Amino acid sequence: MTTDFNFELLGTDGTARRGRVHTAHGAINTPAFMPVGTAATVKAMMPESVAETGAEILLGNTYHLMLRPGAERIEKLGGLHKFMNWDKPILTDSGGFQVMSLAQLRKITEEGVRFRSHIDGAYYDLTPESSTEIQRQLDADITMCFDECPALPASKERVNEAMQLSMRWAKRSRDAFVERQGYGQFGIVQGGTEEDLRKESVEKLVDIGFEGYAIGGLAVGEGQELMFQTLDYTTPVMPVDKPRYLMGVGKPDDLVGAVARGVDMFDCVLPSRSGRTAEAWTRRGSVNLRNARHKDDPRPLDEHCTCPCCKSYSRAYLYHLTKTKEILGLMLLTWHNLHYYQELMAGMRTAIEEGTFEKFVVDFHALREQGDIERV
Amino acid sequence: MTTDFNFELLGTDGTARRGRVHTAHGAINTPAFMPVGTAATVKAMMPESVAETGAEILLGNTYHLMLRPGAERIEKLGGLHKFMNWDKPILTDSGGFQVMSLAQLRKITEEGVRFRSHIDGAYYDLTPESSTEIQRQLDADITMCFDECPALPASKERVNEAMQLSMRWAKRSRDAFVERQGYGQFGIVQGGTEEDLRKESVEKLVDIGFEGYAIGGLAVGEGQELMFQTLDYTTPVMPVDKPRYLMGVGKPDDLVGAVARGVDMFDCVLPSRSGRTAEAWTRRGSVNLRNARHKDDPRPLDEHCTCPCCKSYSRAYLYHLTKTKEILGLMLLTWHNLHYYQELMAGMRTAIEEGTFEKFVVDFHALREQGDIERV
Repeated sequence: MTTDFNFELLGTDGTARRGRVHTAHGAINTPAFMPVGTAATVKAMMPESVAETGAEILLGNTYHLMLRPGAERIEKLGGLHKFMNWDKPILTDSGGFQVMSLAQLRKITEEGVRFRSHIDGAYYDLTPESSTEIQRQLDADITMCFDECPALPASKERVNEAMQLSMRWAKRSRDAFVERQGYGQFGIVQGGTEEDLRKESVEKLVDIGFEGYAIGGLAVGEGQELMFQTLDYTTPVMPVDKPRYLMGVGKPDDLVGAVARGVDMFDCVLPSRSGRTAEAWTRRGSVNLRNARHKDDPRPLDEHCTCPCCKSYSRAYLYHLTKTKEILGLMLLTWHNLHYYQELMAGMRTAIEEGTFEKFVVDFHALREQGDIERV
Repeated sequence: MTTDFNFELLGTDGTARRGRVHTAHGAINTPAFMPVGTAATVKAMMPESVAETGAEILLGNTYHLMLRPGAERIEKLGGLHKFMNWDKPILTDSGGFQVMSLAQLRKITEEGVRFRSHIDGAYYDLTPESSTEIQRQLDADITMCFDECPALPASKERVNEAMQLSMRWAKRSRDAFVERQGYGQFGIVQGGTEEDLRKESVEKLVDIGFEGYAIGGLAVGEGQELMFQTLDYTTPVMPVDKPRYLMGVGKPDDLVGAVARGVDMFDCVLPSRSGRTAEAWTRRGSVNLRNARHKDDPRPLDEHCTCPCCKSYSRAYLYHLTKTKEILGLMLLTWHNLHYYQELMAGMRTAIEEGTFEKFVVDFHALREQGDIERV
């Protein structure tokens, strides 16, 4: 394909935005949720099934993939799309966040991060340059800047240090990025929950210039209220004509609140991880399939849901699969959760198009407040 | 549906038979391989995918299902077909074999077997009557007689005792069977590797009269040669106009050898279990995906195979999924193995129809003798 990488802002409703990102591997309608395919697979899902849920882009994890099977190997095998049989767009993170949370004995310097693999203890270096190169080898449609993301709460001094380092790394990441038609790179706004630091970070990134801008350093323990407050002063200073991606978020109500605040893209392991821990997400909140109340329940998770799990299986069967630890249980619940997330995004897109987003939000919360259907 | 349960013998080639079993939930072309859906799921497979491999009937395990979720519960929820979303025929075993291999503190009497569940230690009784009733509650298209199956080698006296008890239990199973249009019950020939006992067992079962006849007590450690010898004198004395089912068999070459000896139906956990232990079955034998020789191999398991695993994924990817213990690895390899087994059965059916079964067998062995494709 020979499309340019670009973002169309198709419309707005209040501060909520309806858009479309064009990439080398196709378009992504926003607001968009990206399922996480950590190790070159969305766990317990065939990629065709992920596409059936409505997903138009996946996220891959640089940290995991550089360790196993290795970025050079994936490049030789034709890139991540071919390797994992996913021909739509892929965004890869920079590896920075996982190095902080998973690797051992990490040492951060101006140059980058030295760490030991959590798998075999071997030493690795990750720098803005090597992270960017790895993402090129993986053939990511969207490359993320290498950044440092401190856990919150942290002192303003610590947050500022990390943000300033991330901005210097952003410049080095941009310099290392190989331009290819239809491929883009996103800068990552840091600054914790400090308004002045967030604004400074946006300015520095815009000075460098990227195809999109992510908001990093949130959903790391600060809570929804503080996250929304941060968005309230961050998104208004971000470029209108570029996609905005809130990293690692979140629960359904996080997504709705963030879309209302002008965010376009999201990723989170929650729907797929919940699917492997017997937690289902529906329009009426979350449902724990380990609960014996479902044992004899012939009803689906959600009678209005059109996913294969809800169309053909009872809660009693899902309870049975959960109790017997059957792989099909993980498969069906993951499918349902990803379907629900995509349906939620599609609902928001339609509401923004029709100028009814405010009503959508009211209805969304009203249904959740009812809670799960009554026991039979 | 209102079809009668019956068996059409469509043709023969030597002693190999091509047939069709008609049941309440549809027809089964024989020779047929039945994937095993132990706990109301073929592990790691959507039932639609199982059907896509070409499977026309599944096997369910009475022992597992009576313990969890319970046969009464499944009946109340509409039967096993609805519970597990499989609308084609289902055969259930009698529970006898699993009681012997899985349950604790089992005590065999003339009446039946008392055992403790391997799950929670609770006491259960299983008799010809209760096994038959449980299979009715499950709504099995094909019910199996309750029998005792001693491990081999065993003394002739022990084998005879077990066979005689199984024949008395067969009569009680038949008396307990509720006739329903399109539903059938199979007797199980016992007698170990003793020719006279096998013949006596067949005669006793035919005197009772069943819709089909199974050969039990094989594939329990006696080896392929002795199993084939046993078939050589057993199938010729079995009724020509009823389906013959060799229980718990087997590897691909077991299936080919048994079809050559006049067997029509098979079940085995091997293809699905192998799929979860990184062993793939192809026309050229078995392939261990844990072997590092596949690490950089861009080729599919079998370039002639049309399953989703072979159509879209490299050995390198399958190796990666295996190393990272990804669920998708189990899903893809199970799918491939079940597809290969069904393709093998389809190949035998076509060869019998065309009168080329002998050539099929020669080609089958010749390709396997070549072994897996050379390392790249």
